[in-house]
Amino acid sequence: MPLACLTDFQALARERLSKSSWDYIDGGAGEGVTRDDNVAAFKKIQLRPRYLRDMSKVDISTTIQGEKISAPIGISPTGFHRLACTDGEMSTARAAQATDVCYITSTYASCTLEDIVTAAPRGLRWFQLYVQPDRQLNKQLIQRAESLGFKALVITVDVPTLGNRRHDIRNQLDLKTNLLLKNLQSPQEGSGMPNLQMTAIDPSISWNDLSWFQSLTNLPIILKGILTREDAELALKHNVQGIIVSNHGGRQLDEVSASIDALPEVIAAVKGKVEVYVDGGIRSGNDVLKALALGAKCVFIGRPILWGLACQGESGVEEVLNILKKEFHISMTLTGCRSVAEINRDLIQFSRL
Amino acid sequence: MPLACLTDFQALARERLSKSSWDYIDGGAGEGVTRDDNVAAFKKIQLRPRYLRDMSKVDISTTIQGEKISAPIGISPTGFHRLACTDGEMSTARAAQATDVCYITSTYASCTLEDIVTAAPRGLRWFQLYVQPDRQLNKQLIQRAESLGFKALVITVDVPTLGNRRHDIRNQLDLKTNLLLKNLQSPQEGSGMPNLQMTAIDPSISWNDLSWFQSLTNLPIILKGILTREDAELALKHNVQGIIVSNHGGRQLDEVSASIDALPEVIAAVKGKVEVYVDGGIRSGNDVLKALALGAKCVFIGRPILWGLACQGESGVEEVLNILKKEFHISMTLTGCRSVAEINRDLIQFSRL
Amino acid sequence: MPLACLTDFQALARERLSKSSWDYIDGGAGEGVTRDDNVAAFKKIQLRPRYLRDMSKVDISTTIQGEKISAPIGISPTGFHRLACTDGEMSTARAAQATDVCYITSTYASCTLEDIVTAAPRGLRWFQLYVQPDRQLNKQLIQRAESLGFKALVITVDVPTLGNRRHDIRNQLDLKTNLLLKNLQSPQEGSGMPNLQMTAIDPSISWNDLSWFQSLTNLPIILKGILTREDAELALKHNVQGIIVSNHGGRQLDEVSASIDALPEVIAAVKGKVEVYVDGGIRSGNDVLKALALGAKCVFIGRPILWGLACQGESGVEEVLNILKKEFHISMTLTGCRSVAEINRDLIQFSRL
Amino acid sequence: MPLACLTDFQALARERLSKSSWDYIDGGAGEGVTRDDNVAAFKKIQLRPRYLRDMSKVDISTTIQGEKISAPIGISPTGFHRLACTDGEMSTARAAQATDVCYITSTYASCTLEDIVTAAPRGLRWFQLYVQPDRQLNKQLIQRAESLGFKALVITVDVPTLGNRRHDIRNQLDLKTNLLLKNLQSPQEGSGMPNLQMTAIDPSISWNDLSWFQSLTNLPIILKGILTREDAELALKHNVQGIIVSNHGGRQLDEVSASIDALPEVIAAVKGKVEVYVDGGIRSGNDVLKALALGAKCVFIGRPILWGLACQGESGVEEVLNILKKEFHISMTLTGCRSVAEINRDLIQFSRL
Repeated sequence: MPLACLTDFQALARERLSKSSWDYIDGGAGEGVTRDDNVAAFKKIQLRPRYLRDMSKVDISTTIQGEKISAPIGISPTGFHRLACTDGEMSTARAAQATDVCYITSTYASCTLEDIVTAAPRGLRWFQLYVQPDRQLNKQLIQRAESLGFKALVITVDVPTLGNRRHDIRNQLDLKTNLLLKNLQSPQEGSGMPNLQMTAIDPSISWNDLSWFQSLTNLPIILKGILTREDAELALKHNVQGIIVSNHGGRQLDEVSASIDALPEVIAAVKGKVEVYVDGGIRSGNDVLKALALGAKCVFIGRPILWGLACQGESGVEEVLNILKKEFHISMTLTGCRSVAEINRDLIQFSRL
Repeated sequence: MPLACLTDFQALARERLSKSSWDYIDGGAGEGVTRDDNVAAFKKIQLRPRYLRDMSKVDISTTIQGEKISAPIGISPTGFHRLACTDGEMSTARAAQATDVCYITSTYASCTLEDIVTAAPRGLRWFQLYVQPDRQLNKQLIQRAESLGFKALVITVDVPTLGNRRHDIRNQLDLKTNLLLKNLQSPQEGSGMPNLQMTAIDPSISWNDLSWFQSLTNLPIILKGILTREDAELALKHNVQGIIVSNHGGRQLDEVSASIDALPEVIAAVKGKVEVYVDGGIRSGNDVLKALALGAKCVFIGRPILWGLACQGESGVEEVLNILKKEFHISMTLTGCRSVAEINRDLIQFSRL
Repeated sequence: MPLACLTDFQALARERLSKSSWDYIDGGAGEGVTRDDNVAAFKKIQLRPRYLRDMSKVDISTTIQGEKISAPIGISPTGFHRLACTDGEMSTARAAQATDVCYITSTYASCTLEDIVTAAPRGLRWFQLYVQPDRQLNKQLIQRAESLGFKALVITVDVPTLGNRRHDIRNQLDLKTNLLLKNLQSPQEGSGMPNLQMTAIDPSISWNDLSWFQSLTNLPIILKGILTREDAELALKHNVQGIIVSNHGGRQLDEVSASIDALPEVIAAVKGKVEVYVDGGIRSGNDVLKALALGAKCVFIGRPILWGLACQGESGVEEVLNILKKEFHISMTLTGCRSVAEINRDLIQFSRL
Repeated sequence: MPLACLTDFQALARERLSKSSWDYIDGGAGEGVTRDDNVAAFKKIQLRPRYLRDMSKVDISTTIQGEKISAPIGISPTGFHRLACTDGEMSTARAAQATDVCYITSTYASCTLEDIVTAAPRGLRWFQLYVQPDRQLNKQLIQRAESLGFKALVITVDVPTLGNRRHDIRNQLDLKTNLLLKNLQSPQEGSGMPNLQMTAIDPSISWNDLSWFQSLTNLPIILKGILTREDAELALKHNVQGIIVSNHGGRQLDEVSASIDALPEVIAAVKGKVEVYVDGGIRSGNDVLKALALGAKCVFIGRPILWGLACQGESGVEEVLNILKKEFHISMTLTGCRSVAEINRDLIQFSRL
């Protein structure tokens, strides 16, 4: 039976993965309220389709940070792709290049940045940083990524401590995943053991540290994990180039807004001064359309990429991205949007109260 | 056990049909959110019954486009009735004639228009057009329908591309249904193969094309698939004679309003200048009453007709229509409405907040 | 295991009764939306308890139409008690007398009014009338009830035609219940066959007929089935002495308000000029308290009486009433109400929006 | 498998306890609407996390009534701990002392106050009083508690009569629990039978009695069970030192507000003049954070303590408290709160309507 949508991949991936790997990938923090709400919140938003426009030509391409991409769809940073398939992030990178989307590579990649770049030399990639307590290690990572051709630095802000993931406590998962950390080893000694625990993220970073990061690199800096207008305004004040509205797939603090519900608050605060992206819960072309209608420049997907890897490796990721692009093309056509620029708030049905 | 209501027919039809036929008929686009909401939205609307009026005579008849019908209930266009029973649309036409309701015949009928007319020569029928890329073919279809006595031209506007129907992808349905297209073959060579794919609808049609359609026929033109005030206003501006508020049974764009929820917006925009109809989710006499109370002149039903066909052929369709008429009679009696003209907004309980 | 609450009786009654009897008693019209909502709506209303008042004495008694009753709880008219136990309405009458509550006896009682009165000569009873097409039969029934000591005439207004009860259609129930009609036979020939069909209620009665009923009797006239402010105002204008807000247990028109949700609208329209009662969905002492807090003078229960009959005959009805009285006593004690007069709207938590 | 959260203890406790003990502990009054809503209401409140503050030091400690505690988490009074483990309240007291939280000991403890104090001499404890009809017995209990070092007197106001607990009626529980009452026996004859029924609470107490209690003791007096602004204002007027917003775990009056939903009303009425606490439904660190953000000075937990006792005795209680403290630490860290003083209303996402 053909896999017809992203959730078909989810069901198959669940069969293919071990329980602890599945739980690690699928699980949310706490009771999973936010993880589930990320998906459910999209379904509550209704679209207003417009008809009888000439839809013979529909262009779904756009740009992010000035770079052309085939669709406003990218790959959110997730760790440990080797949990899902042998080639791990190298497969992901090849699929991203083939479909012409942006791949945000995680600090917790289970392949080295060098191997990832070699696997897909022409792909657009951003580097995601979990700030390390050893500040010099951050400097090395950033400058290494920049010299390897990554086009932006994505700093994750929502992990001053690791979220409370009950399934991982029950599965006693800690040690296994640490073995897969490849980029926190010093690049000179690529085959050694990781010198850090997965949980050892620097809790002390603050707004004051941003200027130091800016001094290290010419890359645009994008903050991932902002959910409030207050933090969005601080981000602008500290001269970041982009924001990813995200609740970390519901894996950090449970019982926060679905990311699509937090998006309008951030969009209103940012007032168009920088690009705003969103991840969390995107499972269909309609979801992409809704995020853009509410102001996002691009969406990123996390778990569906791992489902694709688990089902069919590189070609699975490619298929996931192609399905989403095809669905988004249909969603635009059926709402009367001939280009991404025509997508706007009038597509959204606000409450009829 | 007698079939007591339309959903009893649904349950039996599910048993009678093959899985792929059932899925094709029953399925919606995407995750089926709108398909299900079409039905659920009616249940959330509460009626306000009025009593102690002399209800010894209750008249449920009305008119559409000036033609008398036995009740404000008609048959929405659906394709491929031969998937459900041997005589297909000929059975449907006979049942519609017997119950004195309007039957909107689909471009995708699996019987020729000529056979349908011959089967039930006295029935009131409208012709539904899926605009074909070959513009001359449209002209032939419209003029053929007009000369066969169809009384209105219903142009479907919500299919610039086919909706994303996951079940049909999984069932790999495409080829089978194309075999049933009978009216897109040139009438001269009635037994040949269809010369078009089901999906090959002209995506380029626009408001500017309406005057061309108007130049081809004297029939009133009715647009099917309008869901917004903006498109309703454009329809008025382009001099159509009617609007069917519809989301194509949730089969085109998922996650739009239930059709009954979209109706008030269109009614407000149209201001009584043309007749407005609605389809989607009507399953009981109360649903008919609610649609009329909210401003519809008539409702149309789609899937229940196919359930009737699948269960008992022509007599099944007749029974479906008779049950709905009987229920509507009870609904009017229990709310104090002696004629369709007495149905109005006061029957609806708006929120008590 | 002791039966601890009314729904324990419901579960046991379901086991004891035949499917068709259970369906007849339990079923609602249409899809049962209103039947279920009658119960669910009570659960959504929150109480505001007040403490540290001296609750050593709590008096739950009250009056209706000037007659003292042990609690603001009575028995709504339901037909055919012999479906549930051998002695039928005679058992009901004895239990009502024993617990000192008002029993509204139905036109469709399966015992004669004479037998009911003989069974419990000291009980407070009202007579419920389904207006018969033969107007003289109405006159006979009313005057017979008055002479037998019934204290009020309850005219049901919500049955100009019988509701659409799908389960009864499926069970083909019609004939059986007609055999149980005892009061529509002329009293002279008490053992003959009923001369009317259950469904043959006069649909022509209207506000204009009320004066005729008033000319026949000195009993107070109470309208049962009013759900709107408009009809409440007309009732006042036509000089009725009371209103029972009711949707007939969800058995007539489906998809109307839960009766507790309709109560405030009627209370506001009546402005205290006549007593207002409510039935539908009352299953606990809290429900009684909420109805009184929202303005009802007394509640009536229907199905729970039949559950009591089916489980344990007369003593079952007595137990149902005693449980409800005991629960209501607890509810008053825990909200700080020492007498029924102290129950008011401040007990209800309106939305905190 | 490690027990990762409080509800893991709940599932295990259910296996360990007899049905009647489980029902007694787990059950609510009536239909359990409020019991369930206590938990569900917390899940509906969304948090607004703030990031990029230096979170290297997070202090979760606070004070109540001037006494330092390790976290704003305490033990609500519940009776009969010997139903759950052999050492009963002595185990609870030891675990409370070990984790440095306040333990409110119930009048219905199944160990004597003396044994409890001996078991954990350095622990912070308050004494909860169910007012007894024998007024002198109250005096003895209060002065005995004060001399044993209890630091506050918690008077429960929401039991003028026992709630209607259907499961206990079905289980016929009364006699068994009375055997466990140890503190209502006169202390001189510690091994005798209880001289009172569990249900024999004085229903006559009223606001006027508060001054008498105040004349008996120098301890601060805290009222437990207040849910309305009116009673909160009366409490202030009668010079109490604290309020516990509580619905008795949904065990007294069903269908009142979840305690977290009643908290804001009480906080607004109290205007910071006395400390306000809350119990009911707290199951996670996020719940603690939300209660504090809405104005509570400390939360108390009831059933989870009994789950800990049932699973692992003293160490189970300790683990329950340590999990909750650890989760609260994570919740503070992930919302940017470095101290309890930094927790405020801006953390709560009010409706986006």
